[in-house]
Amino acid sequence: MSASLPSRAKQIRSFLEQNGLQAWIAWRPDELLMLSGYFPYWGASLLICFADAEPVLFVPLLEPRDHIPAGLRVQEYPWGDLKCSDPYSVLVSAVGGELSKAKIKSEQVGMNFSAARTSLPIQAAEQIPMPEGFAGQLAAIAAKPDPQRQSAFADLYVRKTPEEVNAIRRANRVANVGLQAFIEKLEPGAAETEIAAAVESAIYRQIGRDGIFHSRGWAMVQSGPNSADAGRFNRSTARRLQNGDLVLIELATCVNGYWSDLTRTEAVGTLRPEVKQILEIAISAQQAAVDGIRPGASADRIDAFARDMIAAQGLSSFFTHHTGHHVGFRYHDPGFLILPGESAKLEPGMVITIEPGVYVPERGCGARIEDNVLVTESGHEILSRIEGSEQQ
Amino acid sequence: MSASLPSRAKQIRSFLEQNGLQAWIAWRPDELLMLSGYFPYWGASLLICFADAEPVLFVPLLEPRDHIPAGLRVQEYPWGDLKCSDPYSVLVSAVGGELSKAKIKSEQVGMNFSAARTSLPIQAAEQIPMPEGFAGQLAAIAAKPDPQRQSAFADLYVRKTPEEVNAIRRANRVANVGLQAFIEKLEPGAAETEIAAAVESAIYRQIGRDGIFHSRGWAMVQSGPNSADAGRFNRSTARRLQNGDLVLIELATCVNGYWSDLTRTEAVGTLRPEVKQILEIAISAQQAAVDGIRPGASADRIDAFARDMIAAQGLSSFFTHHTGHHVGFRYHDPGFLILPGESAKLEPGMVITIEPGVYVPERGCGARIEDNVLVTESGHEILSRIEGSEQQ
Repeated sequence: MSASLPSRAKQIRSFLEQNGLQAWIAWRPDELLMLSGYFPYWGASLLICFADAEPVLFVPLLEPRDHIPAGLRVQEYPWGDLKCSDPYSVLVSAVGGELSKAKIKSEQVGMNFSAARTSLPIQAAEQIPMPEGFAGQLAAIAAKPDPQRQSAFADLYVRKTPEEVNAIRRANRVANVGLQAFIEKLEPGAAETEIAAAVESAIYRQIGRDGIFHSRGWAMVQSGPNSADAGRFNRSTARRLQNGDLVLIELATCVNGYWSDLTRTEAVGTLRPEVKQILEIAISAQQAAVDGIRPGASADRIDAFARDMIAAQGLSSFFTHHTGHHVGFRYHDPGFLILPGESAKLEPGMVITIEPGVYVPERGCGARIEDNVLVTESGHEILSRIEGSEQQ
Repeated sequence: MSASLPSRAKQIRSFLEQNGLQAWIAWRPDELLMLSGYFPYWGASLLICFADAEPVLFVPLLEPRDHIPAGLRVQEYPWGDLKCSDPYSVLVSAVGGELSKAKIKSEQVGMNFSAARTSLPIQAAEQIPMPEGFAGQLAAIAAKPDPQRQSAFADLYVRKTPEEVNAIRRANRVANVGLQAFIEKLEPGAAETEIAAAVESAIYRQIGRDGIFHSRGWAMVQSGPNSADAGRFNRSTARRLQNGDLVLIELATCVNGYWSDLTRTEAVGTLRPEVKQILEIAISAQQAAVDGIRPGASADRIDAFARDMIAAQGLSSFFTHHTGHHVGFRYHDPGFLILPGESAKLEPGMVITIEPGVYVPERGCGARIEDNVLVTESGHEILSRIEGSEQQ
């Protein structure tokens, strides 16, 4: 992956100019990724993007260096040095130094202050290690949070560059390796947990192929009556599949920092007609929404393609959630949702999920199909449907 | 798991009294767990602990209900209701209503405002969904952050109750199932990623046994020369084991919200003497530190047991990190570290990791052994060493 993403750099510069900023400080993992293509191991790295100079990246002493994109000016700070009791203050001083050297005033510096809703770093077993007071320390060298500016920054996430689309395509290719394991495990007697574990395992084992240094899946499998819960939450239990079950998998996959968010629902053996109908409606509704994706289509129009079809079967009360969201830098990217009343329009470069579902407890089943779809100049490309031969 | 943990409830009441508080608002997953034994699915739940009344728990409309401890007064808020555009404001109003009903003023209400450093919820593929402005909305109904009070709150984490120790013991039992898979996979030709994936898979499959509704492992395997990196970071690559390798596994395990943090280092085939020496020193140094654990022992004394032994071999520059930390509610709990210069003393009920390591790039190897150790009235109990027959 190249460090200098021309179209991304252009978007960033334009954002800074339009918001009267000379610099942006990023420390949240998904911001680092979006701004520079760098995905942190510890989540304790910090990037300054300048309007008129190359970005500078601060990384912990302990950070692995082999996946830092070329072309970034890298500085180390003593995070992980046993002799340094407060590496964060050292970092804040160094950031202040870079800003004064560039003669940039605090009111010309933007940043997000909250650790909320950022992605997990490579070390994904806990939230990033920045302490509670960290953003406060930075507040002295940055402008006060401005809602309009934060919203303009979030808007940077929604139009992916061609390089980013390729990275999301690769995440979906890996996710499909997981889905293949899912299909192979679908037999009466298999436990939901066994199936989910096999899917995650297949995804983890993709590390080392195709430039992949990080690959992690979170698979949740719900079968039979459990699938009726899948509109509220997704989790695997020890329940074993039975003939006649619907089996739903919700699968989040992170590859080198980029995300895929998929759902599949499959039948085990022969379905009762009232269960089969639910699966068929979910498939048709999802396909209708996907088919409608093109530049200029509004979010609520896409939602309606799916929702109206489900309503036409008298099942509208069983489709309780949105039809989709932006995806790529996070499991759930910032940006508008695909749901009723949302008039925002699709543009080329956007990557969205399409995931209508129908969950009917009284029939003991639920079904959802979810794909990741790129809006192209002429229509759309489904990034998550891969031919069998391409998967491995 | 019982909702009313008598010793925990006593600690909380005493904390509130000593800090002039009538209530504490918790919304970070590890705080919910520590205060009530409840581990959230979405991470969008909120608990109010009162000095003089039973706690009240707000959960999303979409939250599963079957793992909420009995005895908590549960209220739902419309998180996940497509018709509600701002469920967080509804939640903040409801919390304000509870506080006014109890005639509690904002200056008598404590909370942590930052989303930083909290644990992941059950839905572990992303950070909790609370938006950036959420804590700010609560600020109007809570006291200003007070460093001394925040520190006193963090201190609640370090002495575990007997029920919590049992939960951490169970997490370690599950982690040992993972370690058994690790041992079984140790053969020349096996890839680090394959081994790590098998470990995580074994841990996932423990759901459904022994009251376990959530079980997730994060395994990182480093072999041969990669093990020399393990003092800086832990990650698995596609490298395949070779005869003469040291193989190190770092394993984080979360079971029903409670954490185990383990490391093992094993030999594949016959080690060269200079590699064997590193493993033996790591084992001895770790055992020496574990042996020293008893109430009243200071953290730096425990650290010195390990560090001095490594230094005596002329290898002090290859042990670059702390000897341990508190563990249980998070992968890394708040509280003092076990490292040079730390005079804090161990007390019964504390659970700490002991994890010295020696990493020598010029010998192409590194070794670390890590256990989770409970400080008891009379000495200690190693929670993470399980007899083989107990594991499955």
